[in-house]
Amino acid sequence: MIVRPRPNWLRMLFVWRGSIILRILPQLMVVTAISIIVVIFHGELLHWKVTLTTVPFSLVGVALAIFLGFRNSASYDRYWEARKLWGKLLVDSRGFTRQLISSNVPDALPLARAVAAFVHGTRHHLRRTDATAEMQRLLPPEVLPMLADRRVPPMQILAWLAARVAALRAQGRIDSVQAVELDRSLGGLNEAFGGCERIAFTPLPFTYSVILHRTVYLYCLMLPFGLLDAIGFMTPLMVAFVAYTFFAIEALSDEIEDPFGVEPNDLPLLALSSGIEASVLELLGERDLPPVVEPVDHLLS
Amino acid sequence: MIVRPRPNWLRMLFVWRGSIILRILPQLMVVTAISIIVVIFHGELLHWKVTLTTVPFSLVGVALAIFLGFRNSASYDRYWEARKLWGKLLVDSRGFTRQLISSNVPDALPLARAVAAFVHGTRHHLRRTDATAEMQRLLPPEVLPMLADRRVPPMQILAWLAARVAALRAQGRIDSVQAVELDRSLGGLNEAFGGCERIAFTPLPFTYSVILHRTVYLYCLMLPFGLLDAIGFMTPLMVAFVAYTFFAIEALSDEIEDPFGVEPNDLPLLALSSGIEASVLELLGERDLPPVVEPVDHLLS
Amino acid sequence: MIVRPRPNWLRMLFVWRGSIILRILPQLMVVTAISIIVVIFHGELLHWKVTLTTVPFSLVGVALAIFLGFRNSASYDRYWEARKLWGKLLVDSRGFTRQLISSNVPDALPLARAVAAFVHGTRHHLRRTDATAEMQRLLPPEVLPMLADRRVPPMQILAWLAARVAALRAQGRIDSVQAVELDRSLGGLNEAFGGCERIAFTPLPFTYSVILHRTVYLYCLMLPFGLLDAIGFMTPLMVAFVAYTFFAIEALSDEIEDPFGVEPNDLPLLALSSGIEASVLELLGERDLPPVVEPVDHLLS
Amino acid sequence: MIVRPRPNWLRMLFVWRGSIILRILPQLMVVTAISIIVVIFHGELLHWKVTLTTVPFSLVGVALAIFLGFRNSASYDRYWEARKLWGKLLVDSRGFTRQLISSNVPDALPLARAVAAFVHGTRHHLRRTDATAEMQRLLPPEVLPMLADRRVPPMQILAWLAARVAALRAQGRIDSVQAVELDRSLGGLNEAFGGCERIAFTPLPFTYSVILHRTVYLYCLMLPFGLLDAIGFMTPLMVAFVAYTFFAIEALSDEIEDPFGVEPNDLPLLALSSGIEASVLELLGERDLPPVVEPVDHLLS
Amino acid sequence: MIVRPRPNWLRMLFVWRGSIILRILPQLMVVTAISIIVVIFHGELLHWKVTLTTVPFSLVGVALAIFLGFRNSASYDRYWEARKLWGKLLVDSRGFTRQLISSNVPDALPLARAVAAFVHGTRHHLRRTDATAEMQRLLPPEVLPMLADRRVPPMQILAWLAARVAALRAQGRIDSVQAVELDRSLGGLNEAFGGCERIAFTPLPFTYSVILHRTVYLYCLMLPFGLLDAIGFMTPLMVAFVAYTFFAIEALSDEIEDPFGVEPNDLPLLALSSGIEASVLELLGERDLPPVVEPVDHLLS
Repeated sequence: MIVRPRPNWLRMLFVWRGSIILRILPQLMVVTAISIIVVIFHGELLHWKVTLTTVPFSLVGVALAIFLGFRNSASYDRYWEARKLWGKLLVDSRGFTRQLISSNVPDALPLARAVAAFVHGTRHHLRRTDATAEMQRLLPPEVLPMLADRRVPPMQILAWLAARVAALRAQGRIDSVQAVELDRSLGGLNEAFGGCERIAFTPLPFTYSVILHRTVYLYCLMLPFGLLDAIGFMTPLMVAFVAYTFFAIEALSDEIEDPFGVEPNDLPLLALSSGIEASVLELLGERDLPPVVEPVDHLLS
Repeated sequence: MIVRPRPNWLRMLFVWRGSIILRILPQLMVVTAISIIVVIFHGELLHWKVTLTTVPFSLVGVALAIFLGFRNSASYDRYWEARKLWGKLLVDSRGFTRQLISSNVPDALPLARAVAAFVHGTRHHLRRTDATAEMQRLLPPEVLPMLADRRVPPMQILAWLAARVAALRAQGRIDSVQAVELDRSLGGLNEAFGGCERIAFTPLPFTYSVILHRTVYLYCLMLPFGLLDAIGFMTPLMVAFVAYTFFAIEALSDEIEDPFGVEPNDLPLLALSSGIEASVLELLGERDLPPVVEPVDHLLS
Repeated sequence: MIVRPRPNWLRMLFVWRGSIILRILPQLMVVTAISIIVVIFHGELLHWKVTLTTVPFSLVGVALAIFLGFRNSASYDRYWEARKLWGKLLVDSRGFTRQLISSNVPDALPLARAVAAFVHGTRHHLRRTDATAEMQRLLPPEVLPMLADRRVPPMQILAWLAARVAALRAQGRIDSVQAVELDRSLGGLNEAFGGCERIAFTPLPFTYSVILHRTVYLYCLMLPFGLLDAIGFMTPLMVAFVAYTFFAIEALSDEIEDPFGVEPNDLPLLALSSGIEASVLELLGERDLPPVVEPVDHLLS
Repeated sequence: MIVRPRPNWLRMLFVWRGSIILRILPQLMVVTAISIIVVIFHGELLHWKVTLTTVPFSLVGVALAIFLGFRNSASYDRYWEARKLWGKLLVDSRGFTRQLISSNVPDALPLARAVAAFVHGTRHHLRRTDATAEMQRLLPPEVLPMLADRRVPPMQILAWLAARVAALRAQGRIDSVQAVELDRSLGGLNEAFGGCERIAFTPLPFTYSVILHRTVYLYCLMLPFGLLDAIGFMTPLMVAFVAYTFFAIEALSDEIEDPFGVEPNDLPLLALSSGIEASVLELLGERDLPPVVEPVDHLLS
Repeated sequence: MIVRPRPNWLRMLFVWRGSIILRILPQLMVVTAISIIVVIFHGELLHWKVTLTTVPFSLVGVALAIFLGFRNSASYDRYWEARKLWGKLLVDSRGFTRQLISSNVPDALPLARAVAAFVHGTRHHLRRTDATAEMQRLLPPEVLPMLADRRVPPMQILAWLAARVAALRAQGRIDSVQAVELDRSLGGLNEAFGGCERIAFTPLPFTYSVILHRTVYLYCLMLPFGLLDAIGFMTPLMVAFVAYTFFAIEALSDEIEDPFGVEPNDLPLLALSSGIEASVLELLGERDLPPVVEPVDHLLS
């Protein structure tokens, strides 16, 4: 996630970090180069004058903008739903911990640490990275073997927590009503986890990307022929302008469509999961918290 | 579902699998052929010059794009809601299994296997395929007769699970609070199942498809007459471009409108239900899991 | 609801049933007739040449399409929410029945039949038809007097069910926790019923219909004057095309805005309520189910 | 709320009640008058020819329509959410009453009447009218002093109901589980009340109204200069047409943005709250119900 | 939040407070100045005639309006969700207090005051201001040390309330069912708090702002060259009009994107949290309430 105060309107025009320009530079240069060639050859292709005007482009342009707008909204909805699910992880982690207090559960700290381990494990599961270090740091040693070679390790942590709840009830420390309530918070974590898996492993239908990508690029590649007779040597500038708008929106849609990645506009899962760990520990009165993750060069990872 | 890493911007223009081109090729060729004929005859129909310009097309074009955008959004919402419902099936299957642990239910495995059978049964019910093999593999033999000749077999599995919960309470293994909580997870499965039925058996109002189909095709069939005087021999190219955009969006909307089918962009119900089976078994500590369903030629079924 | 497999792209252009053409034929013919008259008189009205061009029409056209798109989305949202509420009726009917099993309630069949009566009663209440026959078929005789001359008869069935739940608890057949859980399913039915009433008795603000209707019709009535100088004798064809698109979308929006009616695209309440009755009875093991309601001439009522 | 059967397409063009024309007549006449003056002076302002064409208007027109469409959707969402909240008031009022039955609460009528008083009180609170008469009619005399000089009187009724629930439990008439369930229905009423306050006391950001109002009016005031050269003496007619569309949508958005008012398209709170009162009393078997509120001149208040 | 009755249509055109004009004045003047220079030099840049027409601007204009409309909707959704979360804080604060009554909790006032402190603390946490004064006023002295040097002080208040609930149950004043129900209201407060944190600390992806800002400003800076040949000396006026519309929508989107700030259109957190404090105290029968926060110069803070 890019974290920076919004510069004023003038400096905003020249911001480098956060513009997506690096990602679309090659194709932008190709399109602009073609425009320049078209201007030089007066729109002739092998001595045939290409008789395009802007008319068909304005016909297609509206449809293109609407469909691109749809894809962009769908991607953003995925991004924001992902953020909501991580908000739910935070809320239910705190909720479980608070219930440990209101149910007077003795020895609550290991349980809260296991919840933090679950959250870190979710991050590693979504990013397909190795969770071992954090699992060893946060979980009791006897839990670690349960996680080995599992397809969905965080689920094992929930299973262990559920078994702990069952044990507390068997010992008479809590009654059924309280056990069920604690289990519901685990259910909330389960739900958020399932939602994250859904977004991570079911992309937007691939055919959308193909159709829109093709339409956008064909549009921009043919546009110079259409503009040439109307605006002459200004063609490359305007084509670059149109292409920048369309390419940038398409590239950004593509980036946030998979919000658990590590691209600049993706969600800062590391900061979020460390924050959750700190928050549940603080709730139990701990003062020795993991440090706050700070942005590096405006980027929070 | 099409599963593939996104190729770079250039190769994306030539992707075959995942483009919907095969489905719309005939009509695309018809429209292009008509354009060529129009160019050859200079827009004359039986010696009458058809006096169309682009003006009426730009009037209709915007409306068309907006209505097509609506239909596309409505289809995608159905697709994504369907995916959410299968996410709910996963979450509540895991939830029920976790509650078996936190309620200390003895002999939990057959119950979890019955939940997996319910999920497979849902898939077969939605795709109207034969569920017998999987029912025999996962359910206790005494349950199978309950499913025979039923209109909605998966509901019988839920009824059997509810009866098992009642028996556990009658035996004093769980109390009312826990029984109700287990029953609520069955309620969640029931809800997801009902939602899937709703999407599968209530299509988008048929009249939408008719109106939009007609408008799109009439538009593209008349467009060559309108473009001819403006762009001459480029007409077939631009008509094909416009028609590709509109036909492809319409065809894709039609495909994902019914997301439980077996077309390339439909949901991978087989992979999803196998994943749920593996997940609930793993949660109970099982290590002998069904294999992961892998995509074949980028297609996950 | 129109139920039919989607024909191929060519036959789809000539489908009769499901096109809304019958409903908009008169106004379409009026508009086309005016266009023809305008062409014959060369756009002169009592020897005054009407100096319209397409320019103002393209200004208004976009706004019109956007507002019509809004009204269409709002109508469709009502339609789909109505369908969801009937899905909720199904889910909660099944849910109540399943809880009868998991709570080990003796003599469950009359209760399930009363739920089916509630659902049929909801249909009759929404369509303002006579429910007597089905009430007599499904309810115990002593309940019928409670329904006589009531403003909202289905609510009386819920009240009777609630009283039955209270009696079961008074008899010690179920405890408070189970009674509350059964009552919650009744609460779900209550909620779905209230939602249906909301949609049925609060239409879209009437002024929307007036404004859009006027703008659409004025637009189409003036359009021939605007197109005449640009496309000459093709004017009636294009005006009919534009008018078809706008009138059809407006008429369809109007039809599905009130989804509980009996027009072709409305919800098949009869099929839905019979399906719910069958489903709750089947859940209790009954094999003597009401027959499946089949579409007649592609129409499910 | 305007309640009337939809007239046929022709009569719909001449409906008076429900068109918003009265509200926008002055500004419509101003704009049309300016158009006529512009036509008479051939677009000259103090001997300077104003050199406007339609080009900039088509640039702005699309943006204007999109932003106006946004404001319209946001207003309608407020309207429909408000209607849903009143639906929730109905559902939870009936739900509380049904729970009184299923929990076998003795002497339920005063409690149900207090719920009806809460609903009427909500209406008066939202419309800032005097609730005394209805409070005296529906509440036990000892409750009335609790409401005097309160900022939020309906909350006091909920507090009294909560105290009644506590008393019932203290007397052993209901147990904790049932008390909590009754309290949850009160919680539902509380939630609906809070939602209504939110909509009533937080308008759409005022700056939206200002920006859109200005853009719409400037657009329509300058439009005659832009259209004059293209369509001559038809200018006033087309300007009036464009202005009618934009002004009417803006005025309607403004009207339904605050759905608890007493303008024609606002919600019929009086009818709704009387309906809720009748419904809860009927549920308890009462036959002496308040009369149904009927529309006067197509207006339900 | 700007609070004022809507002026009539004419005065609305000249409202100063609430127009966002102050914020966009500099850039509006720059763009207008450039337009005037372009008119004076007849569109020549260093003796080169810039050959732009309006054609490319109408191509880009639609896309621009659609993307700006998306960003505007996304910002407004954040604003309205934030308002809903504060509504939830109100509802759950009242709900917790009502449950204190219905559960017959003795000595309820300090608990209700702690809830009010939680709400004020949330405001200070979101606006990063100092909460000490209000914490001292509302919390029992023994709680204050728990809040010192905490990253998320309001969470400590919830933890203290949870501990109070545990103590009440340990003393036998409430049973488990009631304790769980009280804890759930704390859970609701927790959820609303987490939602507010999500909106406050996760802005809209920064790249959206960059792309749209650039496109809008480049568009307006190049527009004079495009309009010059069509509308001559009216160019500066129309450019200013277009720029006002786009800049104002962009600036307002930017302002409400972060709805917890202190800009004119942000949420009135001070008034809201004082209102919640008054409401929970009133519910317990208190008559000594904090004064109502009144708008100053139409601004509610």
